[in-house]
Amino acid sequence: MKTLTVELGERSYPILIGSGLLGEPELVSPHIRGNQILIVSNETVAPLYLEQALSAFRNYDVQTVILPDGEQYKTLQTLDLIFDALLSHHFDRHCTLVALGGGVVGDMTGFAAATYQRGVDFIQLPTTLLAQVDSSVGGKTGVNHPLGKNMIGAFHQPNCVVIDTATLETLEDRQFSAGLAEIIKYGLIRDQKFTRWLEDNMNNLLARDTAAIVQAIETSCRSKAEIVAADEKEGGVRALLNLGHTFGHAIETGAGYGNWLHGEAVGTGMLMAADLSRRQGWLGESDVQRVENLIDKALLPTRAPAHMNYTHFMEIMAVDKKVRAGKINLVLLRAIGDAFITNEFDLDKLRETIEAHRALDEG
Amino acid sequence: MKTLTVELGERSYPILIGSGLLGEPELVSPHIRGNQILIVSNETVAPLYLEQALSAFRNYDVQTVILPDGEQYKTLQTLDLIFDALLSHHFDRHCTLVALGGGVVGDMTGFAAATYQRGVDFIQLPTTLLAQVDSSVGGKTGVNHPLGKNMIGAFHQPNCVVIDTATLETLEDRQFSAGLAEIIKYGLIRDQKFTRWLEDNMNNLLARDTAAIVQAIETSCRSKAEIVAADEKEGGVRALLNLGHTFGHAIETGAGYGNWLHGEAVGTGMLMAADLSRRQGWLGESDVQRVENLIDKALLPTRAPAHMNYTHFMEIMAVDKKVRAGKINLVLLRAIGDAFITNEFDLDKLRETIEAHRALDEG
Repeated sequence: MKTLTVELGERSYPILIGSGLLGEPELVSPHIRGNQILIVSNETVAPLYLEQALSAFRNYDVQTVILPDGEQYKTLQTLDLIFDALLSHHFDRHCTLVALGGGVVGDMTGFAAATYQRGVDFIQLPTTLLAQVDSSVGGKTGVNHPLGKNMIGAFHQPNCVVIDTATLETLEDRQFSAGLAEIIKYGLIRDQKFTRWLEDNMNNLLARDTAAIVQAIETSCRSKAEIVAADEKEGGVRALLNLGHTFGHAIETGAGYGNWLHGEAVGTGMLMAADLSRRQGWLGESDVQRVENLIDKALLPTRAPAHMNYTHFMEIMAVDKKVRAGKINLVLLRAIGDAFITNEFDLDKLRETIEAHRALDEG
Repeated sequence: MKTLTVELGERSYPILIGSGLLGEPELVSPHIRGNQILIVSNETVAPLYLEQALSAFRNYDVQTVILPDGEQYKTLQTLDLIFDALLSHHFDRHCTLVALGGGVVGDMTGFAAATYQRGVDFIQLPTTLLAQVDSSVGGKTGVNHPLGKNMIGAFHQPNCVVIDTATLETLEDRQFSAGLAEIIKYGLIRDQKFTRWLEDNMNNLLARDTAAIVQAIETSCRSKAEIVAADEKEGGVRALLNLGHTFGHAIETGAGYGNWLHGEAVGTGMLMAADLSRRQGWLGESDVQRVENLIDKALLPTRAPAHMNYTHFMEIMAVDKKVRAGKINLVLLRAIGDAFITNEFDLDKLRETIEAHRALDEG
């Protein structure tokens, strides 16, 4: 088992990585203060892993809530199911919420923990690759609004994150690739060596080689932990983690919630960011090609939906959180492993990037 | 104009108290970072004070949302009206929300500010006596749930609080008395001298004498500011501010949201706390009589609804936030001006207190 720490003073917490960790009481019990536990999962994950997770909390008063599965349920309305369970079982402010599932379950459970009785404890048990390398670490929690993704939320750090890589065995290929997008991101923004490693090991990862997976998760979580420790509330460097996300959120929204996976949209979004960087003269043509090859090798899409033109993108991007005083902030690349934030790019070049990355019209 | 400060390090903020402050741009502008302002008010307050408030923000890009008036609308569903406005006007994370109204508007606007894009700025312009002396100061924000009051929320401090006592001129008598309940509370929990002053000045307050009102608000806000500075997240001394609130929340819930005002329920709740303190042998009979006289003099109810018996109270109190491991924590009195928290009281005496404070059956 590998152990990393997210260093946040009094609120520091461990990330535990390994195979078969899910049912181990001694991993979670040091991080629980009260006796009441609510495990939140969804209808896909619960049949596979709830029983195992329950055995880790067998010494506590445990209740469960099973949410419908899918990004389209990441809403205030679904959140109310968690509050209903907490209140109908008389949970007090010393309870602990446990998120067993992917990013949607983790974000909603975290937000419920952030706001139930103005804040209670929570533990992340991420079961998708994307949640394991990204969303379960760092304390971003929240729900979507019909007018924008993740627009309602809070920063609320978990008490611990237990990453059981054995849960990836049942993860479908498309979800696995979506997780690879966020792994690729860490290489592109700050770690050229890791990018090279990914180019060399992508086939091992796709073959679900355990050693390769553990190494990729550990490197990603270490990167995320360092960035979060340096900038918890995203005042500076943490914003680099949004590489590909402004384009990606636009694709997710434009395609309709649930049609594209978050990681798929981020994959295409990172390629668009690289392409715009090239058009601005900041990144070489061969580097853009490396980005495209890596995304393609990870079995991720490299083209946005055919119907999304420049106007469509701009309408959606205008409500993104990265907008400041009407200017769109984008994470772009000066080199592979060297990202920066800017709103000083040419809108004509942005238009070219968008047009160049629309899928061919299905009709 | 009186100025107090809530001392919270980097997040310190001023409370400005005086008559005619609402339309003054120079009071609010030092506390605004961006250009986008959303004023949230309700259908009762907006016709009276929105125009004046707008003039204070005339140099900004201002939008408004008018909510329905009443505690029964303090819900996640109503909150969505604020998010709809923020998103449809493309508000970014540097916007400022302004709460113009009583406690319900303040709590909901504050919670929207706490969670919009994981946290934006907000300003409190409280227009009821209760909001001016209690809820606008200290950063408790949130909404109700059908199974409990204020069960969903966050700590989120405002950037400033502007208390215009002129807004009290239009406040109906019942609402005014509800505010007096929270003022009386500060005397009972920590300030015997202030209790004596209130006994001497209650008639002046009820006559809406400006000097008396300003003094009562200033003393109350100073008390609240000191307590919040010492214990922002209610780990200790801040819990004393809940005197009368566990009984009070039960009365509000049991009577049906909106039938009792919060302050009215707290008034009766404080008397019940005093009475239980006496039955435990901690408070003298004459002190209980002083509490009852003061609450009665403030034109507040001294009896809970006739239909609420012991079982009814206990069912509701069991989901209160002050419950820990099944034990009810109550704020009780050792003397006037000396409150403490305990869960070590006799349930039979609690039953006696509840039975002694039920109104005579209406039928």
